[in-house]
Amino acid sequence: MVSAKQTGMKCSICSGPATVRLEHFNLKLCPADFVRLVEQRIERAIVKFGMFDRTHRILVAVSGGKDSLSLWHALNRLGYRPDALFVRLGNSPLVDQAQAIVQKAAGSLPGKLNILDATDYSGRVSIQEVARVVRRPVCAVCGLARRYLINRFAVEHGYDVVASGHNLTDEAAALLGNLLHWHEGYLQRQWPLLPKTHPRFAAKAKPMALNYEQDIKLYAELNGIEHLADSCPFAVGATSRIYKRLLLELEQEQPGIIAAFYLGYVRREKPAQQPVPLRDCSRCSFPTTAEVCAFCRLQERFSRTQPTSAQKPCDMPQA
Amino acid sequence: MVSAKQTGMKCSICSGPATVRLEHFNLKLCPADFVRLVEQRIERAIVKFGMFDRTHRILVAVSGGKDSLSLWHALNRLGYRPDALFVRLGNSPLVDQAQAIVQKAAGSLPGKLNILDATDYSGRVSIQEVARVVRRPVCAVCGLARRYLINRFAVEHGYDVVASGHNLTDEAAALLGNLLHWHEGYLQRQWPLLPKTHPRFAAKAKPMALNYEQDIKLYAELNGIEHLADSCPFAVGATSRIYKRLLLELEQEQPGIIAAFYLGYVRREKPAQQPVPLRDCSRCSFPTTAEVCAFCRLQERFSRTQPTSAQKPCDMPQA
Repeated sequence: MVSAKQTGMKCSICSGPATVRLEHFNLKLCPADFVRLVEQRIERAIVKFGMFDRTHRILVAVSGGKDSLSLWHALNRLGYRPDALFVRLGNSPLVDQAQAIVQKAAGSLPGKLNILDATDYSGRVSIQEVARVVRRPVCAVCGLARRYLINRFAVEHGYDVVASGHNLTDEAAALLGNLLHWHEGYLQRQWPLLPKTHPRFAAKAKPMALNYEQDIKLYAELNGIEHLADSCPFAVGATSRIYKRLLLELEQEQPGIIAAFYLGYVRREKPAQQPVPLRDCSRCSFPTTAEVCAFCRLQERFSRTQPTSAQKPCDMPQA
Repeated sequence: MVSAKQTGMKCSICSGPATVRLEHFNLKLCPADFVRLVEQRIERAIVKFGMFDRTHRILVAVSGGKDSLSLWHALNRLGYRPDALFVRLGNSPLVDQAQAIVQKAAGSLPGKLNILDATDYSGRVSIQEVARVVRRPVCAVCGLARRYLINRFAVEHGYDVVASGHNLTDEAAALLGNLLHWHEGYLQRQWPLLPKTHPRFAAKAKPMALNYEQDIKLYAELNGIEHLADSCPFAVGATSRIYKRLLLELEQEQPGIIAAFYLGYVRREKPAQQPVPLRDCSRCSFPTTAEVCAFCRLQERFSRTQPTSAQKPCDMPQA
């Protein structure tokens, strides 16, 4: 756990004054060594799981939150040269605020920031309105649209890998939920790397998968990384939060259990291979198991209900 | 969840007045149908997992707690004719009280009650004193001694199977702990039946594995089954209690998740087979992976420290 400044603590690495206590790693650290530790754990994840190297074209999916902005920052500090992609999923003040934060970050980082507006696919209608019309949960529609658009953008712009800010705590919570319900398919897909299994699938990497959420938060704070203060308002009450709360309770009793749990899973499982044959979506030509991919089906369902408001399917704007 | 008497509730089975609400099965029941449900779920576990039939010689391991005494009672109601075994693990007033409760239960049940005194192996010294001398946790020493003595008694007295009172909630909590730490070996052994894999291993069955703990508690209450009010004083603060608390919190949010979690595991796993070759213990001849079995090693370690107090190794008293 990260604590406030404590008198007399010595850094476990440099013996200087320590201000950070990490119960989960049994370490006390000065701010500089703490920042190094977080970055070392990002580098370790990249190397250990074979995510990418400095020759690859990397696209960081940024949302405006602490995780993805810290990742973008850290990858640059580690000598990678990623670009970034921000997907607008509506037209609310929160989306504008997120975009402004991401654009400000881009001003001090070398890579290119791409901005993609998901509402181009829904006649400027926000994701929550689409969800209402097609009668599906907002989180399901948002996740589907984001995954599709990010992958498609990465493939069409020649990126080797999409890097996302998923942290250890979130991954462990999702893993716990999938284990409690024995969701086999999802279990396999929780490995820190989804390799490229198709020419039109970019590899997906989670370089923050070895860092606790609270450490990322402190990393952002110590590096002055501006980010949205709150998490997505639609995620309030999400089931995954229950698993996270339970894991955090357990972590209080057994510091380090979250890391041990997730790493135990990683050791057991292999990175997911493509389990079923894929075909080209008859609308957008991106790989799918069905005749029409889930994103195009969603768009068509929305268009049928709101025929005047949607553009023609999958008319990808160029960023 | 079991609630107090509620006005106007109708039994989901007979439409009579219901006094029990089971959120986890989405049922409201009258007391008679509740008792039948618990017993049906015991019978279903016995049949579904191939535990035993009415021709087998069954030994119920009874501790004086609600689970094992309810099991002994229910097996008789279901037409099985089990005997029972109570193992004394010390000489405290609590052990005397447990034995008195078990003996009282035996008075109204047809099977034979066997009583075995574990302190015969330690010169009348209680398990907690043995644990202190050999410097191991009480629960580890108690579990080892109980498992060994119950199996040996069952084998030497020709029982086909040992039935224990492990309930669904406890099994799910143990499963969660084993998953969080990825204890592969233990995971395999949590199936509701450990089949007989060696002539000197009795099969081990958990016929209560489909019944929530709170349902067993109410079953005992409704049937006037007297039992120890408290659980073992040494288990206070045990790690397994943390997992149980977390699961019970989750059950509040998602009624039925404990059953779904455990049954999902049971569907995935096969009953454990003997994974490694066994040999005969050079002291007691019971199967082990080592030269001397864990129970005999424990006894020898204790004897070396307390040479005057222990009997000769493995001098099994006849019950």
